This record gives sequence, C-alpha cells and structure tokens, in this order.
Amino acid sequence: MKSPRKNRPHGSIVAVGGGEEKFDKPDILQRFVAEAGGAEARVAILPTASAIPAERATFYQGVFTQIGAGEAFPLPIVTRDDASLPANLAAIERATGIFMTGGDQSRLVAILAGSPALAAIHENLVGGGALAGTSAGASAFSATMITGGEGGLQLRRDGVDLAPGLGVITRLIIDQHFSQRKRLGRLLTAVALEPSKLGVGIDEDTAIVYYGSGEIEVIGSGQVFVVDGSRAVAQGLSESDPSAAFSLSGALLHVLTAGDRFDVEKRKPLSVS
Amino acid sequence: MKSPRKNRPHGSIVAVGGGEEKFDKPDILQRFVAEAGGAEARVAILPTASAIPAERATFYQGVFTQIGAGEAFPLPIVTRDDASLPANLAAIERATGIFMTGGDQSRLVAILAGSPALAAIHENLVGGGALAGTSAGASAFSATMITGGEGGLQLRRDGVDLAPGLGVITRLIIDQHFSQRKRLGRLLTAVALEPSKLGVGIDEDTAIVYYGSGEIEVIGSGQVFVVDGSRAVAQGLSESDPSAAFSLSGALLHVLTAGDRFDVEKRKPLSVS
Repeated sequence: MKSPRKNRPHGSIVAVGGGEEKFDKPDILQRFVAEAGGAEARVAILPTASAIPAERATFYQGVFTQIGAGEAFPLPIVTRDDASLPANLAAIERATGIFMTGGDQSRLVAILAGSPALAAIHENLVGGGALAGTSAGASAFSATMITGGEGGLQLRRDGVDLAPGLGVITRLIIDQHFSQRKRLGRLLTAVALEPSKLGVGIDEDTAIVYYGSGEIEVIGSGQVFVVDGSRAVAQGLSESDPSAAFSLSGALLHVLTAGDRFDVEKRKPLSVS
Repeated sequence: MKSPRKNRPHGSIVAVGGGEEKFDKPDILQRFVAEAGGAEARVAILPTASAIPAERATFYQGVFTQIGAGEAFPLPIVTRDDASLPANLAAIERATGIFMTGGDQSRLVAILAGSPALAAIHENLVGGGALAGTSAGASAFSATMITGGEGGLQLRRDGVDLAPGLGVITRLIIDQHFSQRKRLGRLLTAVALEPSKLGVGIDEDTAIVYYGSGEIEVIGSGQVFVVDGSRAVAQGLSESDPSAAFSLSGALLHVLTAGDRFDVEKRKPLSVS
C-alpha cells in the first residue's frame, strides 16, 4: 500500500453506530477521511453488506468527495468471487482508507470471511491505512458478532443471536444503533456468554476510533456503552431453556461520550473529556 | 401494634415494580400477606397515591381477601387532614401489614410526608409489621424519589426528575415498571446525582423484599436492576446545561432475578439462586 500515512505502525479503525451525519455536521466521516490522509486520502467504499450495493457505493462516493477526500471509489465486492478478483485486490492495496457500509452483517461476513480481499484489508490496516464500518459494517469487525436479537433490558439466552464475525477487532463485541434500539439487554447477554470480550454499544451518529495500541476514543453526538463482564457472575444462563431470565451480577458499565478515551486492555477509562 | 409477628425486631418491606399478578399467580401479594401474618394478617390498604382511591382500596380489599389474608380494610387517607385522624391512626396500629397502591408518588408524599399517619406506619414497621408499596407506592419508599423522567438509555441531567420521598428505605432510589418502560438511563442519572444511594429498578410483577438487616431478596417473574455508582465517575453532568449528554464510568450493574439476594450495606450479591 502506498499510503500517505504508511509511516504509522498500524492504521486506525472507526466503528460507527449507524446513522452518521453526512451533510450538516459530518464529524465522524471527516475524522475517518482525516485518518485516511485527508486531501490525499483514497477511500475505497465496500458496499458488500448492502442489499443495494451499487447505489450505496455511489451515494458514499458523493459524500466522501464532498467532505474533502482526495478520491473515493466503489469496491464492487458483492459475491465471494468478487473477493478474489485481482482488480479488487489492487484497489484495496491502493486505498488509504476502506469504508464498509451498513446492511446485513451476515451477508458481509459470508462474502468476505477468509477471502483474499479480507487479507488485503488486514494488510492495508497493518500498513497504516484507515478502516471504517457503519452499522452492520461496525458489527462485523467483531470476532464474536451480534447478528440479531431483541431490544429492551431483558436478559435471556435467546435474546441475542451470535455468529463469527470478521475478527478485525477481536477483543470487542460491537453493537450499533444502541440507545435508539435499546440494545443493552442483548449486549449484556452477549458479554455474559463471552466474558473475555468487552461489549461496546455504539449509538447512532457516534463512533469509536480504535488504535492498534488498544485504546478507543469516542467521537460523535451520542453515547458509547462499554460493558465489562470479566468479573460478572451469570446464573441461570441456559442453552436448554434459552427463554429463561438469568441473573448477571457485577458487570461494570461505562457510558462514554465524545472525547472520552478507554483502554481496552486494562478495561479502564483513560481520560474523560 | 398487636401483631402476630411482633416478636420480630423489624418488619419487612415489599417494594413492587407495579403490574403484580393478582389472580393467576399472585406470588408477590401472597408473600406480602405471609409477611403480614397470613391467615392472621390484618391488611390496611392505603390508596393515597391513586386518583380513584375508593375504587382502588375496594379492589385490593377483594384481592387480599381472596388470597387468604385474615382481614383487609381500606385506610381512607386522601387528604393531609385524613393523615391525622385518630380513626386512621388506630387502624394503622391495628394492622399487621400496610399496602400502598400505585398512582402518583408526588400526591402520596404530599399527603403523607411528616404526618402522624406516616409516623404510625414507621412505628408499625419497626414493631414487626409488613409494609408494601406497588409502582408509585414503591417509588415513594425512597428518600430521594424519582417522580418522572424519560425512558431509554440516554444520560442527561434533565432525563430524571427527583424529589424528597417518604424515606422508608433511605439507602435506595427505587424505580418501577423498569424494563417495560426502559428506565435504565434515568436510574443511572439519578445514581450519578446521588452516588451514595443504590439505584434499584424493579420490573413489573417483580419485587424486592427488604429486611431491617439491609438485605434484599428478589421475588416475582421479572428482573431487578441494582446500580452501584459509589465508584463511578460522572463528567459533564451539568445543572446549567441539563440537556447535555454526560459520561458515567465505572458503575457496577447487577441484574437480579427471583431468589437472588443482595446486601445493600456491602453492595454485594449474597447468593444467587
């Protein structure tokens, strides 16, 4: 990759909770463009999650151009075959930032997981490129990915659907549209099932910027819920009776807003704005 | 008070999240009746919070009689004058259990706070009587009482309305209809404002039984959220800009179900069912 930022050891990942502002105050997208090199950025738009990929790619192409990216172009990967095409791999290599649109995270993972395109995206990131995903695109960054579930505060095994994700950020289980769709119950359930991961629920028009160092920074207008279940005790969490309510005691909750930073490794806030 | 249970040092308090089952599986009301002496119980129904107090009292009178209370009678306190009437004070003294209906917690407090009736209710409790409140009746047990606010997961100063309550359980801020009305945001906000109190959010058809010892037990079909903000750090919580989102890091969350017990003083679960 010939990135203007290739001197950096590892690029940043921007996981957006969906519904990011695109015209009036596009802070999140502008931050991604800045991470990708600003006026020198070459942004590849990956619409794989979307049911209308061509339209989504064209739409974001206009948005990124308007907010000052040097260049923006679609990365038309909509089948598994597309994810091996030399032209697409070359486009990934050329990009200084890759943006994954929303849609269906299961479709995104089914097409991309284990593909040469995903390997190229990883390489791009390690080489200093920026990577962003919104909504389904953000969820798919997880290794343990939330694919569905219920809104509300109920804790039940069948309140969340999990599947393997792309594993770009293995330490987090990312959920999106978080406050808007009231998803704390399903995130607590996911963390109860896999307490080694941090649960991260991202509101709309809100994002985390994740650095190779394991630090996240919150940007945007909403909240980010971080659920640390590493010391929590779950009781009554049952695969055989998945609709039963279960208990979870001792979960640590951090509700963060723009400017807050959090150390994922130490599981502690770093500074508060 | 001539209570069948007067040998106990302190009676129990049952705080119900509203919507308790009254006919099919009236576990919570039956537990209250049992705490009040079962077949020997004399239950006084205090409909002060209700906009239709006579109807509510008559309704609960039927319910308590049907589920096996020895006796159930209305305690017609609907004005501040009523709260000093000798007949009402005598009825409180005679009761082995007092039940506060739902309605409006502000009305309940306005009529009862500082009254001879409230003093008599306290005395009854200390003497071994049982005390229950549902919905508004449960909220009013708090010293710092939630009177209103918004549903959802947003943390903002103006997301919760607080007022002095009856102070029957001073260490807790009780909220009700909790999961059903998605009230975690307002409970977190209340605890951020008063971190010395434990936030307790009780679902419908769910209750805590609080003993003089400072231990609570969860009963009923739903969940109880306990929020411990004693080590949490709030930032950006502003009276001058009350609609601003604020951060809260390090809140401990316990989601409890029937059979779980919690030590309010040590702020730890005691055992899990």
